[in-house]
Parts: sequence; C-alpha cells; structure tokens
Amino acid sequence: MEKEYFIDLFAVGSFAIPKLLLENYKKIGLNEEEFMFLLHIYSAIESGNLFPTPEQLAERMSCSKDRCMEILKYLIQRGYLEIKEKNDDGIVVEIFSIRPLWEKLYYFLYDQKKKKALQESELAEI
Amino acid sequence: MEKEYFIDLFAVGSFAIPKLLLENYKKIGLNEEEFMFLLHIYSAIESGNLFPTPEQLAERMSCSKDRCMEILKYLIQRGYLEIKEKNDDGIVVEIFSIRPLWEKLYYFLYDQKKKKALQESELAEI
Amino acid sequence: MEKEYFIDLFAVGSFAIPKLLLENYKKIGLNEEEFMFLLHIYSAIESGNLFPTPEQLAERMSCSKDRCMEILKYLIQRGYLEIKEKNDDGIVVEIFSIRPLWEKLYYFLYDQKKKKALQESELAEI
Amino acid sequence: MEKEYFIDLFAVGSFAIPKLLLENYKKIGLNEEEFMFLLHIYSAIESGNLFPTPEQLAERMSCSKDRCMEILKYLIQRGYLEIKEKNDDGIVVEIFSIRPLWEKLYYFLYDQKKKKALQESELAEI
Repeated sequence: MEKEYFIDLFAVGSFAIPKLLLENYKKIGLNEEEFMFLLHIYSAIESGNLFPTPEQLAERMSCSKDRCMEILKYLIQRGYLEIKEKNDDGIVVEIFSIRPLWEKLYYFLYDQKKKKALQESELAEI
Repeated sequence: MEKEYFIDLFAVGSFAIPKLLLENYKKIGLNEEEFMFLLHIYSAIESGNLFPTPEQLAERMSCSKDRCMEILKYLIQRGYLEIKEKNDDGIVVEIFSIRPLWEKLYYFLYDQKKKKALQESELAEI
Repeated sequence: MEKEYFIDLFAVGSFAIPKLLLENYKKIGLNEEEFMFLLHIYSAIESGNLFPTPEQLAERMSCSKDRCMEILKYLIQRGYLEIKEKNDDGIVVEIFSIRPLWEKLYYFLYDQKKKKALQESELAEI
Repeated sequence: MEKEYFIDLFAVGSFAIPKLLLENYKKIGLNEEEFMFLLHIYSAIESGNLFPTPEQLAERMSCSKDRCMEILKYLIQRGYLEIKEKNDDGIVVEIFSIRPLWEKLYYFLYDQKKKKALQESELAEI
C-alpha cells in the first residue's frame, strides 16, 4: 500500500496562493471564513470546476450550506466575487470569477505604494 | 512605476499548500480561523521566520493578539502544533513545528483508505 | 492598462512543483530537457489539457516538434510517462499519466532511506 | 516507517513557479538548461540560501561544475541574473538576484500586449 499512497500524494499536488493575498486579505476587508470561502472557489476553478455549488463548498468548510449561501451573497454584494456567463459549446453556463478580488488587492497595494512614496518625499523635504 | 510593480509581484511569489490539507482540514477537526492560523505559521516558517510572534500573526489575521494567544494554546493542547528547541550556533531558540498537523492528516487519510478497502471487500462478498 | 495587467498576472497564477522532484530529477535519470518536457505535460494536465500535442509542447520548448516526439518516445520507453485511455462520456480518449514518474521518485527515496538506515546501524556497531 | 515518510513529504513541500514564466521562458531567450539553472537559484533563494555555489547547483543538475560556471557567466552577461552585495549584520556578502529575469518577462509581455492591441485596432479599421 505504501507506494500507492505516496504516488497519490504527489498526484493530488499543491495549490499555489500569491503571498501578497495571504498577507493582505485582512487589510482588504476579509476575515478568515470569507477568505477561505474564496480560496475554495479559487481552488475549484483551478481544478476545472468553474461553478462549485454551496453543497460542495460546505463539505470542505466548517459551516452549514445555508451559511455558505450567506457568505456567497455577502461577497458578491461587497464586490469580491462575480457570477458570469460562459458559452460552453452553445450552452450558456454560470461561472464564478475572482477577478474582483485581484482588483481589490491591486487598489490596496497601489494606495500603499503611493502613501509610502509620499512619506519618503516628505522626509526628503525636511 | 508599472515595471517595478510587476517585478515586485513576481519577487514576492506564491505559497504552495498541499491540496489534501485544503480539502480535509475540516475533517481533521479545524475550523477556518484555526486553519488560517496554522497556515500563517507554516508560511512564516517557509520564509525563514521559525517562531512568528502573536503580534506578527495578529497583524495578518482578523483577530486580536489575545485571541491569537488563545488559538495558539488550543492548537498546541489539541496536538496540531508543537514548540521545539533548536540549537542555533550555540544559542538555544524556540521554533514552531507543524509536523503534528501532517501526522493528523496522515492518520485521517489512512483511516479513510482502510474504510474504503473494507467497503470494497464487503461489496465483493455480496 | 496597469490594472488589467496586474489582474491578468494573478489570474494566470502559479504552478507548484514538489521540491523532492526538483532536487532529485537528475538522480532518477533525467536531464534538464527531459525534466522540462515532463513538467510541461504535468502543467498541461493540471490545467485540464490531458493530452498536449507535440506541437503544443514544442511551442513552449526550445526544441523542434520532431525532437519533442523523440523525447516523448524515450520517456515512455524508459518508464517515466504513460499513455492511457479514458472514457469521456462514451468517447475513448488518450491521456498522459505521469504516475510512473512519481513511482521512480518513490523507489529512489526509498532506497536512499534504506541506505541511510544501514549506515547508521553500521556506525552504531563500531 | 510509512508515517515518517508521509510527514517528510509534506514537510519538504512544493515550490511555486509563475505560469507566465513556465510558458514564456523560451520566448525570452532561454533554453531548458538555462531555465533550470535559474530555477535552481530561485528555489535556493526562496529556501534562504541566497548564494548557492556552482558545486551545489551541479549536484542537482545533469552538467558538470565547470558547465555550471559557464552558464552562470552567460546568464549574467546576457542580463538574466545579477550578483549583488548585501549587508548582513556588518558583513558584506554576495547574493544572487533574479530581478533581471522578471524584468525581461515584463518587457516581453508588454510588447506582446501592445502588438495585440495594435492588431485589434487594425482589424477595427477594416
């Protein structure tokens, strides 16, 4: 069994999270539950499941299906997540997009950079 | 500015999480807050910071320093995390080890595999 | 343009390679060209393309399509790569499997561990 | 032994490569040997070894120490890699920097984007 176990481990693989997201999710307004919800959606998308159901998400998270629905609504309303339509060989299907999350991260890092540049120019004037 | 921004993004890089951990943290008894706490420690260790302080962890998490201390104690008591001693050029320092987490995951996957094998042998008998 | 550029970067994401593979591909008999060939197949599979063509591989590699065909044959003959059949909604399609690569890595690490254990027991006898 | 084996696997972890680099290294002028050389340096830096020696690199690569020295010179001359000085508690040490690699990738992707935008505007004029 040992060999098959080892191979399965490698076959499953790893999921890469940008460190800038890991370090700043709190600063762009997410708590751990919301961040993990987005991470599960992100991971599902990367594995080819573009529209995981609340049931699928609740199976991995320590909250109920109903709570998952609430988090989903909240994240869409607050602009961290989008539902889009995709034409899949003539059939229109719904898919999640986390581009709004990257956009929030972009604006946050941009502001941070501007503030830092301002501080440095003020220091230079003294 | 654009170029430097792009390069910084790449220079910061990504952090790889085993999918088996992402998919099963709930099943080995962790909620999202506890899982993220361990993930921040794991990420700090990988970056060379072997003993992140509660202050450093609270800066990234949406909970207070005191809550971080509570989670830390809880995870150590429940056997997800260890504090070890390391001899660093003659000076003994404390470091975190998440080997207990991998051990919990190992036992969970092992049990799952045994149950599946049992079910299959029972089905074969019918 | 800057914002869209940033978002695209994140949307493309990263690909996680087990460090044990990166550190030991040479020791399991692969050179850089062969290793990269397998990595491109691995990355294609992870992105949902289970059977990348020699043309697709040659587009990313600094060798011709014919050289790609040669490497492919070599890796299959030497047991690093397999072509399998998959039933996709009633249609049988060919897919690549890199399980043989993980198997080679498994045997290598296992031997290494046995040798180390042997050395330690010999040292203990002195 | 099985359990320790499993835990070691997780403890070693994975290394995340930006997909844009994996997909475009050839287009920014690198062959597989040169790309892997840079990858080994990148991986060493991420693990805290900021200046891996040609011996250390040759141990992982299927080429000799002398060939490693040649690749190193070539990559520095061609502007993919830099040697910088770092002040480490009063002692100046040499470290590698792969920022030039990200810069090359940036310019390549930028040009590609400009060409695409040009083509689209030309198509719109027809």
